[in-house]
Amino acid sequence: MAPQAAGVRLSDLQRPVERMLGAVGDELRRMVLADLPLIDDVNAHLLQMKGKQFRPMLLFLSNRAAGADDPRVIRFAAIVELTHLATLVHDDSVDHSTLRRGMPTINALFSHQVSVIMGDYLYSRAIIELVAVDDLEPLRILSRVTNEMTVGEMRQLAAYDALRFTEEEYGFLIRAKTASLFSAACELGVLRASPEHRAALRAYGHALGMAFQITDDLLDYTEGEAVTGKPSGLDLKEHKVTLPLIAALPRLAPDERREVDALFAEQEPAEERVARVIGLVARVGGLEYARQRAEEYAARAEAALEELPPSQARDALRDAIVYAVERRR
Amino acid sequence: MAPQAAGVRLSDLQRPVERMLGAVGDELRRMVLADLPLIDDVNAHLLQMKGKQFRPMLLFLSNRAAGADDPRVIRFAAIVELTHLATLVHDDSVDHSTLRRGMPTINALFSHQVSVIMGDYLYSRAIIELVAVDDLEPLRILSRVTNEMTVGEMRQLAAYDALRFTEEEYGFLIRAKTASLFSAACELGVLRASPEHRAALRAYGHALGMAFQITDDLLDYTEGEAVTGKPSGLDLKEHKVTLPLIAALPRLAPDERREVDALFAEQEPAEERVARVIGLVARVGGLEYARQRAEEYAARAEAALEELPPSQARDALRDAIVYAVERRR
Repeated sequence: MAPQAAGVRLSDLQRPVERMLGAVGDELRRMVLADLPLIDDVNAHLLQMKGKQFRPMLLFLSNRAAGADDPRVIRFAAIVELTHLATLVHDDSVDHSTLRRGMPTINALFSHQVSVIMGDYLYSRAIIELVAVDDLEPLRILSRVTNEMTVGEMRQLAAYDALRFTEEEYGFLIRAKTASLFSAACELGVLRASPEHRAALRAYGHALGMAFQITDDLLDYTEGEAVTGKPSGLDLKEHKVTLPLIAALPRLAPDERREVDALFAEQEPAEERVARVIGLVARVGGLEYARQRAEEYAARAEAALEELPPSQARDALRDAIVYAVERRR
Repeated sequence: MAPQAAGVRLSDLQRPVERMLGAVGDELRRMVLADLPLIDDVNAHLLQMKGKQFRPMLLFLSNRAAGADDPRVIRFAAIVELTHLATLVHDDSVDHSTLRRGMPTINALFSHQVSVIMGDYLYSRAIIELVAVDDLEPLRILSRVTNEMTVGEMRQLAAYDALRFTEEEYGFLIRAKTASLFSAACELGVLRASPEHRAALRAYGHALGMAFQITDDLLDYTEGEAVTGKPSGLDLKEHKVTLPLIAALPRLAPDERREVDALFAEQEPAEERVARVIGLVARVGGLEYARQRAEEYAARAEAALEELPPSQARDALRDAIVYAVERRR
């Protein structure tokens, strides 16, 4: 990775497309508006917990980097964000999560019912907005992605024996969960670019998304909570198997493996056991393995950018790779 | 209503389009197919609990009655049924229903998680199939309808004080819940017909759907359960306010009204109380009022058919109105 890029901040990446990112919020607000107070209450909450706008940023930077002139990008960016919101609302409902981005989830604040229906509401609004664009291509891209996301979720639900989850299955899952929408966001920015640039940015988005999600899963093993300073180990507590553990399992001694089995047999694993398993995973190289895989995807993302002419936007896309794998949260 | 049409059976309506209805199942099977056993298990269950195929039937009969030549109708019919299935899966999840068409629901048989994600899976499959048709018009129609359905559901969730539910709100709800998809099914059959025929069948579908849903809600007050022979009163037990009660409320004496209030204050209303309230609603004319409203919509549906030339298919559409308001289940 280029040394000057270390310590990249999100605001640095956003700078070249700052003004467009500002417009996404308004566009999103317009799209979700309804003539019913309950829907608007949910919307207000969702718009407040606005995340990093990482996908809109990728869309705009891709558009800029490929020099593609397309006045529809702000609308596309809002639709991508809307689709993302719809999936978050359903994910939280399925996982019975109570917090998202430090704020109560829709299922926690309203109800399970409201979250199921609102997810449908948001998704059908996204389709309506796509239809209004009067072009089947963006619809083709986004409908495939949303379907792929549901297949990914179903795969996760189907994994009865979590500890038999393979690296291949994990790869399929994070592609469905994260990389597909990253890739779609990039591609939607360059529908009017050359086929070569379009293919390059689709590949970039995919590789970046894989690196991003592996890093996300790694952070669960490495980053301390605000209060205790110890790794949160939330995935382990919820019996979610991610790459560090998948890589570690075959390297464990029998008594170490029994420790992991015990954790997965406990309804609510004890903190000390979670800490011990994190220690084991680290010791046998599970974290290192995941880090390497993330770096491999980062390198692929960087290689894809070679297809594009040098520009400030391309530099920002390169910095986004560094951000994805080096961030601490 | 034409006297010869009394006692219409569903199989009579289906006869003119029997062969096409047979093809819908195969098309649907193809559309939902996945490379994951859990998805296919859910699909198998859903395809088994195949309902009346009322919407595909309306689509084919509309197509035939308008003499519209459109080879896409079988695909459209399967997509409409797929959309309908997706909403049923989420509705059952939201209502925590355990039975649908005499079979366990997806949430009961699998889990809440599976039903949320499978609803999304089915809906996104429907969009993919629509995109493959390569025409934005059917997408425009169906995306509006599915969004309207979610707004209807949200309205129902927002009605904190069920007994203040107005006839206007009820009308909005059943339009969203039932009439909009009936109307869309009819319209999808005649995208290649004249604008007059298209408008006529859209209006027919809407009026028919209203009559159908009012009748459905009425049956809950009038039709005996298999075991007890007494009206099921399921909506009342679940504190759902439909047209018979809305019409009855202002006509009740204060002590009668207190009986209703008591029912709505009870978490699980006693059978005798439900029976008493059904008796009250019937006595003050609530059932009669709802029946009249259903007949008004039936008359509107019939009037809409006047725009079409006489044909066997038009006769069947007329019989479908009789079926909608006179059926016993």
